[in-house]
Amino acid sequence: MHTVSMRLITIVAEPVLADRLTHDIQRHGATGWTLTEGRGSGSRGTHAEEVPGSAVRLECVATEEACARILGELAERYFPFYGVVAWVMPVDVVRGDKFV
Amino acid sequence: MHTVSMRLITIVAEPVLADRLTHDIQRHGATGWTLTEGRGSGSRGTHAEEVPGSAVRLECVATEEACARILGELAERYFPFYGVVAWVMPVDVVRGDKFV
Amino acid sequence: MHTVSMRLITIVAEPVLADRLTHDIQRHGATGWTLTEGRGSGSRGTHAEEVPGSAVRLECVATEEACARILGELAERYFPFYGVVAWVMPVDVVRGDKFV
Repeated sequence: MHTVSMRLITIVAEPVLADRLTHDIQRHGATGWTLTEGRGSGSRGTHAEEVPGSAVRLECVATEEACARILGELAERYFPFYGVVAWVMPVDVVRGDKFV
Repeated sequence: MHTVSMRLITIVAEPVLADRLTHDIQRHGATGWTLTEGRGSGSRGTHAEEVPGSAVRLECVATEEACARILGELAERYFPFYGVVAWVMPVDVVRGDKFV
Repeated sequence: MHTVSMRLITIVAEPVLADRLTHDIQRHGATGWTLTEGRGSGSRGTHAEEVPGSAVRLECVATEEACARILGELAERYFPFYGVVAWVMPVDVVRGDKFV
């Protein structure tokens, strides 16, 4: 099975950001996304630990360049102001053309 | 902590495929699976972008061989006809015997 | 974009364990977690395959050391008694200071 190396970026954020984030990641070159709802807890600002609250978990497979652009926007426009975390990892996909 | 290297395969698909996909992956050697419901958007066929719709997110830890068989079946029987994407990544697990 | 290498640990468990597991992972050094609800099936004990049941999917980004401690506790206190699986993978994050 021929596979192609891509990146998976996962973003966990306050639910109010869901539509804005899906728009952003598509603008940066992601061709699709998956969103699940849950709850979470994390450190933010001066709070060592927050009370658990609702959270959306957004993930998309994209090129390394697209993921870097998405991380850049998160770091600039979201991380200082919102409860948002993100991580990136390499993944293998079968149809690489679906993601560029 | 002794860990064993396995593969994690994640499949995002139309909800109508959920039962068929869980059956398929077990037939190919996966011993378990986790399914969460959400929504998603992705390219399919000639459509550059689809309207977001419901989606199921199915994941399982399996051997590299089982994941290859699952990807092969997805590529042959699902990708041409359905809104399905999948990705694979290496993971470390503690009890490798649970997944074979 | 400067990134830092961390670990992502994912735990799938019976819903009754959710609060105990989130407490455990924070005690071992994880600063946050995300929980989604779904359903799953897996092998446990002498049963080759269980009927699908509700499941919680808990994930957190943490240091390699914290993940090792979490896996150690899972192996000792949960794996022998509960339907629990877990896997660990390397991830890249932007703000490494959020996770230590």
